[in-house]
Amino acid sequence: MVSKNQIKLITSLQQKKYRIVNQLFFAEGVKVIQELLKSKFELEHLYTTQNDFDEVSIARKTLIHENDLKKISALATPNTCLGVFKIPAERKVENTGLIIALDSIRDPGNMGTIMRLCDWFGVNQIVCSKETVDIYNPKVVQATMGSITRVNVSYLDLNVYIKEATLPIYGTFMDGANVYKTSLPQEGIIIMGNEANGISEVLEKQVKNRLAIPRFGALKETESLNVATATGVILSEFRRSL
Amino acid sequence: MVSKNQIKLITSLQQKKYRIVNQLFFAEGVKVIQELLKSKFELEHLYTTQNDFDEVSIARKTLIHENDLKKISALATPNTCLGVFKIPAERKVENTGLIIALDSIRDPGNMGTIMRLCDWFGVNQIVCSKETVDIYNPKVVQATMGSITRVNVSYLDLNVYIKEATLPIYGTFMDGANVYKTSLPQEGIIIMGNEANGISEVLEKQVKNRLAIPRFGALKETESLNVATATGVILSEFRRSL
Repeated sequence: MVSKNQIKLITSLQQKKYRIVNQLFFAEGVKVIQELLKSKFELEHLYTTQNDFDEVSIARKTLIHENDLKKISALATPNTCLGVFKIPAERKVENTGLIIALDSIRDPGNMGTIMRLCDWFGVNQIVCSKETVDIYNPKVVQATMGSITRVNVSYLDLNVYIKEATLPIYGTFMDGANVYKTSLPQEGIIIMGNEANGISEVLEKQVKNRLAIPRFGALKETESLNVATATGVILSEFRRSL
Repeated sequence: MVSKNQIKLITSLQQKKYRIVNQLFFAEGVKVIQELLKSKFELEHLYTTQNDFDEVSIARKTLIHENDLKKISALATPNTCLGVFKIPAERKVENTGLIIALDSIRDPGNMGTIMRLCDWFGVNQIVCSKETVDIYNPKVVQATMGSITRVNVSYLDLNVYIKEATLPIYGTFMDGANVYKTSLPQEGIIIMGNEANGISEVLEKQVKNRLAIPRFGALKETESLNVATATGVILSEFRRSL
């Protein structure tokens, strides 16, 4: 059984302002919840339609009917469980190794995919402009497939951060140097731009190393790669010589 | 003004069976519709809330109110236009160059992203198992960003196709050879597997060349890359030496 107040609270967490007020977010699905439970994230309460999650104490777990899960879920087709977790304090930015900087990424699916890519390619730090989609957005949490527990994400004034950075700054542009023929370091900040507008003009001025992913199609009409797939290709290039 | 019958027809096209019955599909948004109009696709009718698309004859265009657009749109936030197009006859499979074979890709977003990647990396042919999501699904059409006009997609019995293929067969597996250290040809078939289950066992037996994208994260817990981002990395590797 889920009370009206619980339904109200959990559905409110789909909105960033209520996540901030309550310092809570939620995740759905066995895999993501298991990864969160194993990690530093602190469970507030778990709702499940199955007799599962033996590792969670009875005080923090409620067995519910799937009709109740529908009421609190953000998914069109709800999973079997939903976990409400505390939003942890933001950790300090780690200014070493490869860092991905996101300039106003808006799509939750792209954000989640980029976190998963960073996890795969050993990038521990993402820095985001304040306009970038919140990682505790339920759709982002879902798309990370658990990588949210392993990649440190910081929201900050990206213009100031890039201005003060000592690591080399990379960005992708249509007129950049062929990434396949450029010698790439193992430390640096790679800026990925907004889905529609790319890297903002102010930020572009700070980019010393302009890269491009060459286009091979016979018809030169493909406008651009999706930002998440472009991040994958770029990270692969930075890591492939390791 | 949109009639009740038109609303019924267009919303029915969200389902594959009605797309087959009517041999129609629809696309939303100025960019995708413009690309379709420029291409071999034949417009059935265009609905728009703006005085745009001068290239379309008045007989094939209806100016509608945005409330009417909401009734026919598949989007939570409708664009300004929706175009109904005829489904073209399936073209013959082109068995040259690089070919992407999709083994039961289910997510429309992944399908659209893979088509966009093929377009970018000069892959003209995708072959799909019959269980793969339909390219005329409105969410796929949307995600292709126009690449649907440039990449040839064929649905067939993938097991038979792969068995009879003369080009070398590639696939990605956890235990495959490091893709960064493998010499890759400019002709071949690259199989990408289902989001949850990967490449099916029957098909796996046909794969002579097993590839892997190495994982660089310190924690070896990341389960896998999303199939669309993995396709991006693999295609980039096949093309980078060109």
